[in-house]
Parts: sequence; structure tokens; C-alpha cells
Amino acid sequence: MSGAPPRRLLIVGAGLMGSSLGLAAAAAGYQVWLDDADPRQLELAVAVGAGRRRDESAPTQVDIAVAAVPPAVIATVVAELSRLEIAATITHLSSVQTQPQVEIEALRLPSTDHIVGGHPIAGKERAGAHHASADLFRERPWVICPTATAAPNAVDAVSRLASDCGASVTLMSAGEHDALLAALSHVPQLVASALAGSIRPLGPERAALAGAGLRDTSRLADSGPELWAQIIAANADEVAAALRRVLDPLNQVLTALEQPPSQVEAAVRQLLADGRSGRRLLAGKHGAPAVRWATVTVVVPDEPGALARLLADAAAAEVNVEDIRVDHAPGHPVGLVELDVAPGRQDALRESLTTAGWSASATTAPE
Amino acid sequence: MSGAPPRRLLIVGAGLMGSSLGLAAAAAGYQVWLDDADPRQLELAVAVGAGRRRDESAPTQVDIAVAAVPPAVIATVVAELSRLEIAATITHLSSVQTQPQVEIEALRLPSTDHIVGGHPIAGKERAGAHHASADLFRERPWVICPTATAAPNAVDAVSRLASDCGASVTLMSAGEHDALLAALSHVPQLVASALAGSIRPLGPERAALAGAGLRDTSRLADSGPELWAQIIAANADEVAAALRRVLDPLNQVLTALEQPPSQVEAAVRQLLADGRSGRRLLAGKHGAPAVRWATVTVVVPDEPGALARLLADAAAAEVNVEDIRVDHAPGHPVGLVELDVAPGRQDALRESLTTAGWSASATTAPE
Repeated sequence: MSGAPPRRLLIVGAGLMGSSLGLAAAAAGYQVWLDDADPRQLELAVAVGAGRRRDESAPTQVDIAVAAVPPAVIATVVAELSRLEIAATITHLSSVQTQPQVEIEALRLPSTDHIVGGHPIAGKERAGAHHASADLFRERPWVICPTATAAPNAVDAVSRLASDCGASVTLMSAGEHDALLAALSHVPQLVASALAGSIRPLGPERAALAGAGLRDTSRLADSGPELWAQIIAANADEVAAALRRVLDPLNQVLTALEQPPSQVEAAVRQLLADGRSGRRLLAGKHGAPAVRWATVTVVVPDEPGALARLLADAAAAEVNVEDIRVDHAPGHPVGLVELDVAPGRQDALRESLTTAGWSASATTAPE
Repeated sequence: MSGAPPRRLLIVGAGLMGSSLGLAAAAAGYQVWLDDADPRQLELAVAVGAGRRRDESAPTQVDIAVAAVPPAVIATVVAELSRLEIAATITHLSSVQTQPQVEIEALRLPSTDHIVGGHPIAGKERAGAHHASADLFRERPWVICPTATAAPNAVDAVSRLASDCGASVTLMSAGEHDALLAALSHVPQLVASALAGSIRPLGPERAALAGAGLRDTSRLADSGPELWAQIIAANADEVAAALRRVLDPLNQVLTALEQPPSQVEAAVRQLLADGRSGRRLLAGKHGAPAVRWATVTVVVPDEPGALARLLADAAAAEVNVEDIRVDHAPGHPVGLVELDVAPGRQDALRESLTTAGWSASATTAPE
């Protein structure tokens, strides 16, 4: 695209998301204008370099206008931008997609083909323009949800903005997006808040004994109630369905807790095994099917050439090593090396390595 | 204690906890012997320097013996150590305290006064001796649960071992410990697993769109099902009570999700407000009551002397600044500084700072 004129971008809403978008787009060569109802937020955003003030150097026309505002006011801001006829394409960054689509439709604007909603799945624990980052969207998904009548060039413009900011674009319907985000984001928020709220009877002295596990699990509970009340209310049906998928197994465990220990253990084992299956999905690369290898684990001394010797001995066993993980704590004289092999080949490799003098053990592939 | 002979410590169980205890105690001047039913685990533990093999240089007598084994076998290991009469004091590191106490009592050993259970609230996501760390217990709580008949010198010996390892000792009954840990550890584990399990229907491609929030909230779901089945079964009643405190508010939200948006918003706002209250308990220093200050937030440029100027101007306002937080993202030209002041004093400070040229806003103390 060398030689092409810079694209012009207007962002309404200069919080963390809007300001980060301004920084990322500016770094990609866009001209960026900013606006915000809160003058201090706008001041911060301009100060961090996210763009120039819309009221000082307003362009008569931009290529894309973005409503980077809370869900409840997206339709209003998008409609205002549309009526001004200031932008060839209008998008927003809403964490709920169906409701703004329905609300915009209900406004009966002269045209909505140039309005294409999107949702960069990126964020930070801290809000505000002074935490904005040009890298916020880098390597993160950016879901774009065109309506059936969306103009292809508007979809292209939003997709290009997303990829110019370093994001990975995924297209899906607003309905699919909302069902997905209910499970991946909205329900985790509710669960984290309920967990954090449950410790209130303990008081600060006892609660301070909590370990890192509870702190991580409840970290989302720091989020602001007002924004989340809007998000959950805007996605109520999908949140209810996803919340049931969390509550049902917990209610089963609650019932089992009144039974003899063997039944408690069986219920907990099942819950944790299902949880591990879910976590394996999270670990998977985007789009890659999860492959299950058998694993041979070897104790390896921390000395020059040890890993090379191990791999030479593995090669001599004529077992193909599909993946390798070195699990070594810094400064320790030994570590563990995990060699992934095709299911069924683990015992051959373990025996061969044991014969070669290594301390090795084998596990079958997870189901 | 200079000049005192080194204390002798026998640790049965050379996993992450036992090996870390060996490293920490050795660093504090103890002589440490190790044993483990798994020869490879023992080999790793000796290799990382956690102690010497019990079977090579067994002392006839030690000052403390520690059962660093899973809950289900603690009573067996403690009873064996007791019958050998090898240790003046015996302790264990169980994450559940009542059940081992009851089981040990049921064994009708000649004496149990020298047996004092304890639980260092410390751990890592990774298991195994090769991840052991001498610092694992540093600045962490170590709860000690003496029975009514425990000998004071045995309680002292376990407390001293804990503080020698850098931990902060808290004494409480086994019952209180188990209720506390149900809320702070056991229920968070179940909830994290249920949350992770709930995304299984999505498949890997869609699940890969998850953000950092779900990854953090479900991190505990990587834990091993077998150990946790034992822990939860050993603490069933307390876990059930604590689990209800999480499920009840979530069921209320589930009911509200079928109501009009205003009721959904009210329910979510309440859940998140309660969650934030709970999180504030976690943030509190051990034993310190949570103080609620009003806050004045000021935009501060990133230039030499800006913070000093701000504090000079605050001092001139004759409002005492109780606490200060600088909220500054690296490389950005501005940040936010939060000044905590006594409730009721925030407006005086804000006005004074605004007059001095700062961009400042005030918020009242949280309830």
C-alpha cells in the first residue's frame, strides 16, 4: 500500500479501547481524530498520542468512524455519526453484538449497509487512556459481525483496520458471537464476582491467608459493576444458557458432598477431568486441532550437551519425537524433559532410553 | 541461636512441598533427611539439594519428622513415624486438618501429644521436586492446628520450623482451618474446574478466542483430579457450606436473567459490588483492618519534579495525604496519581489543587 494516502479515522470514546485503537492506527499510518464526552479522558488520550481533538481540526469526511463507547450508548453514537454522513464506514467495539444491531435497525436510518459491528477481544485490568497501548490488539482476535445487508467494502474496511492494528480477524454472526462471549467472558465475570463475594463473611484477617489461586480466580471481580450490568443485560439469554453449563455440574457436586466419600471423590474427579479437557481447548492454537501424544519423561542433568545426548539416544531408538518440552527450574542441577511420541510408541522409547542409562518413564496419550 | 547444634529434620514425601521444605530448612541450618516411595522423586529431590537419602545415613533420632504426603495417607505415615519413636515432634503439611486428626486419634497410638498438624498455604502450579524452592514459604502463612492435648514444646518446634522457613505462623483449630480453606482454596478449585469444563462444547477453534480473563479464572483447573478428590472428600461438609455461598447469588442472577433488563442490571450490579467487597478483603494486609479513604485523582505529567510539586501543593492545602498510588504506564507522557485522604477532606484538596493548576477530581470513600 505504499504511496496510498493515509486513511482517516474518527474515534468517539477515548477510554482504554478507543485510545489504544488510536495509538495502533496511528502507528499503522492512519490520521486519527478523537472525541469523548469526558474532557479529562480526552485530555489524557491526546496527551498519550492517541490522536488529535476532533473539535480542533475536524475533517469533513473520514474513512472509518468508530464508536468506542459502552454498550448502552452504542446505537445512539452510531446513529449520530450516520446522520452526520461523516464516515464511509462506521463500526463499534461492543462486547455484545446482537443488541446494538437490533437497536440500530429500529432507528430506521436512511441506510445501515455501511455500519459493521466488531469486537476486539482484548483488554486490560486497568481502564483509562493513560493505560492505552498501541500493542493492545496485536495477535489478539477481532471478531467482525456483518449483517446480511452489510456492504462488502464496509466489511473490508473494518477488517483492514483490525489487521492494520495487528489483530487476527474472525467473521461470524452477531448471534454466534454473543453465545461465544457469554461462555468465554460474561459468565467467567459473574463466577469470579460470586467467588470473591463469598469470602466476605471471613473478614480481612482470615481472608489475607488466601493463596495465589483465589487471587487469580477472582481477579475479574475488580471490574466495574456498571459496565458489566449493561453487558449482561444486553446478552441475557445467552448468559443464562452458559451460566447453566457452569452451575449444573457444581450442583451435582453439592449433592454428592452429602454422600459417602467414594461418591464425593467420583464426582470431584469427574468435575476436574472435565475442567482439564476445557483447559486443553484454551491451550490449543487458534484453529489447530488438539493432537494427543503419548509422553516419555526423562530426568536430565543441567550440563552441556545433555539434551543433545538425549535426542541422539532417542533418534537411535527410531521413535519419532513429535514435540519436546524442557521443564527446568532455573539454577537447579536437574530438570525433566518430556518427549511426545505417537500413541503406542512410548514404551519402545522408554526402554531404549533406560538401556542407554537415562531415568525415563512413559505415560499414554490423554483421552 | 548461634552456637546451638543444627536441628535434625526428616521429611517423608519428596514432592514440591517436601523438597521445598528441605531446601528452606537446610538454608536455615537444619540437617535434612528425605524419603519417598517413588525412587525417581527422591532422586530429583536429592539432586536439587533438598536433603540426603534417609536410607543412606539414617539418624536414630531427629527433632522433627514431617509427613509431606497426600491427605489420604497422612495418618498412616504419621503413625509409622510415631511407632518408630524416631522424632521428638511429628507434623504434616495437610491441606485438610480435621480428618487426619480424627484418623490419628482412631489409631490409639501410645501418645499423640507430640503430633501437631500444620498447613503452609503455599504452592505452585507445577508439581515435583525439580520445581522446589527454598523461598516457597517466605512471607506466606503457615497455619498450625494443635489438638487440645498437644505438648507446648511440640507446638513450639513446628512454629519454629515454619518461621525458620520464612513463613508467618497462625494458630487456629482444625475446624476453623478447614472452614477457612474450604472458602479460600477448595471451592475456588471446584469453580475454576466447572468454568473450564463449561467451554468444552465450543471446540478448540472457538475456545482459542478466549481472553486473559478466562485463562486466569480457570488456571486452577489444570490441577490434578486425584489429589483434589481426596482433599474435597476429606472436607465435604465445610466445602458444601462454602460452595452454597457461591451458588446462591449465581442462582439469583440466573433467575433475574429471565426478568426485564432493569432487574438483570440490578442483580448484576449487586453481584459485582459484593465481589468487589470480597476482593478488597484479599488486598488487605494480614491482620490490618480495611480502612476506607476518599480519593483525589490528579493528572500528572511524566517530567522531573512533577510528583514533588504535586505533594508540595497538597501539603499547602493542609489536607493530610494518607496514602498515594502512582498509576503510570511505562513510556507514557502522563499518568494518574491517587491521593487518599480522610473522608470529607477530598473536596478541599481537589479545589486547592485545581487552583494550583492541576487537573484533579475527587471521589468519596467506598462503603
